[in-house]
Amino acid sequence: MSKEIGITAKKNEDFSEWYTQVVIKAQLTDYAPVKGLIVLRPYGYSIWEYLKGSIDKKLKATGHENGFLPVLIPESLLSKESTHFAGFTPEVFWVTHSGESEIGDRLALRPTSETLAYSMYSKWIKSWRDLPLKINFWNSALRAEIKSTKPFLRTSEFLWQEGHTVHATKEEAEVEVMTILDIYRKTVEEELAIPVIIGKKSEKEKFVGAVYTTTMESIMPDGKALQMGTSHFLGQNFAKPFDVKFLDTQNVETFAWQTSWGVSWRLIGALIMVHGDDRGLVLPPRVAPIQAVIIPIYSSQNDKDQVLKKANEIRETLSKKDLRIHVDARDEFTPGYKFNDWEMKGVPLRIELGPKDLAKNKVVLARRDNRNKSDLSFDDLQNGIVEALDVIQKDLFERAKRLLNEKTKTVSDLGQFKKEIEIGMFIRSPWCGNQKCEETIKEDTGADIRVIPFDAKNPDMPCIVCGTPGKTEAMFARGY
Amino acid sequence: MSKEIGITAKKNEDFSEWYTQVVIKAQLTDYAPVKGLIVLRPYGYSIWEYLKGSIDKKLKATGHENGFLPVLIPESLLSKESTHFAGFTPEVFWVTHSGESEIGDRLALRPTSETLAYSMYSKWIKSWRDLPLKINFWNSALRAEIKSTKPFLRTSEFLWQEGHTVHATKEEAEVEVMTILDIYRKTVEEELAIPVIIGKKSEKEKFVGAVYTTTMESIMPDGKALQMGTSHFLGQNFAKPFDVKFLDTQNVETFAWQTSWGVSWRLIGALIMVHGDDRGLVLPPRVAPIQAVIIPIYSSQNDKDQVLKKANEIRETLSKKDLRIHVDARDEFTPGYKFNDWEMKGVPLRIELGPKDLAKNKVVLARRDNRNKSDLSFDDLQNGIVEALDVIQKDLFERAKRLLNEKTKTVSDLGQFKKEIEIGMFIRSPWCGNQKCEETIKEDTGADIRVIPFDAKNPDMPCIVCGTPGKTEAMFARGY
Repeated sequence: MSKEIGITAKKNEDFSEWYTQVVIKAQLTDYAPVKGLIVLRPYGYSIWEYLKGSIDKKLKATGHENGFLPVLIPESLLSKESTHFAGFTPEVFWVTHSGESEIGDRLALRPTSETLAYSMYSKWIKSWRDLPLKINFWNSALRAEIKSTKPFLRTSEFLWQEGHTVHATKEEAEVEVMTILDIYRKTVEEELAIPVIIGKKSEKEKFVGAVYTTTMESIMPDGKALQMGTSHFLGQNFAKPFDVKFLDTQNVETFAWQTSWGVSWRLIGALIMVHGDDRGLVLPPRVAPIQAVIIPIYSSQNDKDQVLKKANEIRETLSKKDLRIHVDARDEFTPGYKFNDWEMKGVPLRIELGPKDLAKNKVVLARRDNRNKSDLSFDDLQNGIVEALDVIQKDLFERAKRLLNEKTKTVSDLGQFKKEIEIGMFIRSPWCGNQKCEETIKEDTGADIRVIPFDAKNPDMPCIVCGTPGKTEAMFARGY
Repeated sequence: MSKEIGITAKKNEDFSEWYTQVVIKAQLTDYAPVKGLIVLRPYGYSIWEYLKGSIDKKLKATGHENGFLPVLIPESLLSKESTHFAGFTPEVFWVTHSGESEIGDRLALRPTSETLAYSMYSKWIKSWRDLPLKINFWNSALRAEIKSTKPFLRTSEFLWQEGHTVHATKEEAEVEVMTILDIYRKTVEEELAIPVIIGKKSEKEKFVGAVYTTTMESIMPDGKALQMGTSHFLGQNFAKPFDVKFLDTQNVETFAWQTSWGVSWRLIGALIMVHGDDRGLVLPPRVAPIQAVIIPIYSSQNDKDQVLKKANEIRETLSKKDLRIHVDARDEFTPGYKFNDWEMKGVPLRIELGPKDLAKNKVVLARRDNRNKSDLSFDDLQNGIVEALDVIQKDLFERAKRLLNEKTKTVSDLGQFKKEIEIGMFIRSPWCGNQKCEETIKEDTGADIRVIPFDAKNPDMPCIVCGTPGKTEAMFARGY
C-alpha cells in the first residue's frame, strides 16, 4: 500500500493528525462543502446503523416509542425557557427567508428539541391515563461550531437521538433518568467495548434547563475526557413554562415531571480513538460492518477458481450464523495490498485462504487487534469464527479498561494535580462542592469537573483547591 | 365513543375534512407550531418504520448502502445546475445567520441533495473500480409550502429517502432507474396494498435536471391523482457541472451516468385515503403497528382474572410468530369504547375474549376491513390469525384494484374528457406528444399528464386536443 493511501501519522506522536487520517482514509466520513459539516460515507454510516439498532432495541424493550419532530423551531418558542435559550442562542442557525419572502418570527434549526416537543406534549397530555409518555427521536441537531471541525467530535450538524419523557411523579422520572443512563452504559461497554465512569455533572456543567444531569465519561488516549452521553432530570423546569400538566387520579391538575437524554455519533469518534492503532481503525466485532474478510490467495487460474469457490462457500456458511462476511475478490490488487486495506478499515478478523490451506482443509485466521495468526479447520469454521469474534470483543474491552485505569489517578495535592493534568490524566480529587473552586481549577489548569461519580466517597479530605473539608469527590480532566 | 373523539365527517361527503380528522384523531400526526410543518406521533412514525424497513431491505439486497448528508447546502453549490436551481429556488428555506454572525454564502435547507451528493461523489470517484456507487439517504427534505398544509401530502418538511447512484455506462444507469421503480411498485402494492400505474413523466412534468423521470401514480377516492414515487435518469446532466468522471478500463477520463430517486411519507397519506372508511383508518396488516388487538370482556373480578390471563397467554403465543399483538387491558373503558377506538386506529383484526368464549375454548375474530366476525378455536389460533391477516392484505389490494379500475377510463373525445375529469376520473387518451396540447388541457380542465404508461399503445388515433395522429397514450387527472 502506498504511503498516500495508508495511515502515515503515529497515534502516539501526532494524535490529531492520526485521527483525521483514519476517519478520512478508512472512508468513514468526509468534509462537506460548508465549514463545520461532514458527510457519512456508507462504511461510517453502517457503524452508526449497528449502534442505532442496539440502542433502539433497548429503548423499545423499555416501553419507548419513536416519533418525528421538524427541524424548524420558532424563536418565540425556543426562548420560552430563558436559561435554556441563553445557553443555546450563540450557536443557533437562523432561517430568515423562504424563497423570496422574509419570515416574521425567525426559525431556529433545532439545537435540541425540548421546547418543540413539550409544546406538543402539552396538547397531548390530558390525564394520568396519558402517562408516562416516552418518545424518542432519531434525528440530527445543529449547533454552529466556531472552532475547527473534528469529525464525529465537533461538527455543526450531528446525528443523535434525543428522548423526551413525561411522568406523573418525581420518583418515576428519576428512575427513568437512571434507566436510560444504564442503557447507554451497557451499549457503550458491551457494543463499543469502552468502559465509562458514570455520575452527575456539576451545577456549572449540567444541561441548561435541567435540575441535574447524569453523564458517562471516559478518557481518550490523548488525555482528554469525552462526554459520551447524558440523561437529564428536568424536574418541572420545562413543564411550567410549557404547560405540561395532567389531571391526576383525584382529578387535580398537576404539573408533570420530565426527563430528556441523548447520545450522538460522537460515540463513533470515541471508538476510533480508544481502539485504533498506527495501521488504522480497530472495530469491535459487534458494530463492525464487516466482521471477517476472506482474502483468496492464488497465482494460477485453476487455483483461483478453486479458492474463490471455497471462499464463497465459507461466506455462505458463516452468513447463516448472521455473521457479516465479505469476500475480497478484486483481481486488480495483491493479497498484501488487501491485508493493509482491511486492516486500515479495522475489520476484526481476516480469513486467508490459499491452495495450501485448501489442501489441508483449513484457513488462516488473523486477528486485527493483536495481529495473532492461527489455523482453523473447515470443520470448526462456524463456531471458531463466532468464538474468535467474542474473544476480540472481550479483549478490546479489557484493554480499554486497563488504559482507563492507567489514566485515572486519585490526587489530593494541588501541585501534583497540576502536573498530572499536564500529562493528560483523569483525576479524582476531593472537592468542597463550591463553584468558585471549580472555576479556579479551570482557569489554572484548563480542566473541568467531568463527572461526580456515583461511587464517590465522602472522604472528609480537604478540597483540592480551598482546603475546606471536601463534600464529595469529583473527576477532573481537560475535555473535548 | 363520544362524537368529539370519533370521526364525524363522511369520506364520501367531505373527503378533506374526513382525512384531517382521521390523521389527527387516530394520533398519526399533529400540527407543529410553524405553519406547514407536522410532527409524527409514535403511531404514525411506527407505520413509517415498517415502510422504511421494507424499502431498506430491498435496497440493501440490490447492493445499495446508506449514508448521511448534512441539511445545509451553500447557495453557490445549489445553483451550479441552473434548471435544477430555478425549479427549487421559490420554495427554499434560507439560513442567513449563525448566532449573531451573518453568513456570507447563505445556506439552503436541503430541498433535495443532488448538488451536495455529487460534489462529494466527484471527490470519491477516481476510476471504474469505484463504480457503480449506489448510496441512499434516509432524511427529510424542506420545501416551503405556500398552500394550506395537508399532513403527509403537503408539508414544508417531509420524511423521505433519496437515492443517488453513479454508473460507468448509460445502459447500467437506465437499468438502475427501472430496478428502483420496481422496488417502489412492489413495496406499494405488496405492503400498502395500493395498485399503481407505472410509466414516464412528460417533459413538462419531469424532475428539474433529469433526462427523464419514471413514476408510479394512483388515483385517490376523491378523484385526484397522487404521485407515489419517482426514479430519474439524470444522464450526464449533473455529471458535467459537478465533474463526476472516472478513468475507464482503457484509462480514458469519462463522464459518469447517474440516477436519483425517492419516496416519501406521502405513501402514508395514500394508504389512509385509499383504505380508510367512515370509522377511521384501515391499515394493511403488513405495515400495521398493531396487527391484532385483544379485547378482554368481563364483569366480575373472577372473570377478569381468567380472561386477562388467557389474553396475555394468547399474546405471547402469537408474538412468537412475529405477530404484533396488543392486549387492551385498560380498566377505565368499556369494551364498546375500545372497539371504536381500535377501529378508528385501523387495527386489522380484533380478538374478543369473554368468559363464554373461554368456556368454549375459542375467541371471536372481527375484521376491520369488512367487519365480518367469526369464531376461532384456541387450537387454530396461530395459523388462523396468520391466515386472516393474509386474507385481509389480499382483499384490501383487490378492493383497491377495483377502485382504480372503476376510476380509470379510456376517452378519445374532448367533450367527454372534460365531463370525466369533472367527476374525478383518471383518463387514458391519445396524445400527439406536443407540450402545447398538454398545456391546453391543463388550462381548460386543471388536469395534468400524470404518467405516460409503459403499456401505452400507439393507437394512431387523433390527439385528444389537436386531432393530429397521437404518438402515444397519456393518463390525465387533476393532481395533489
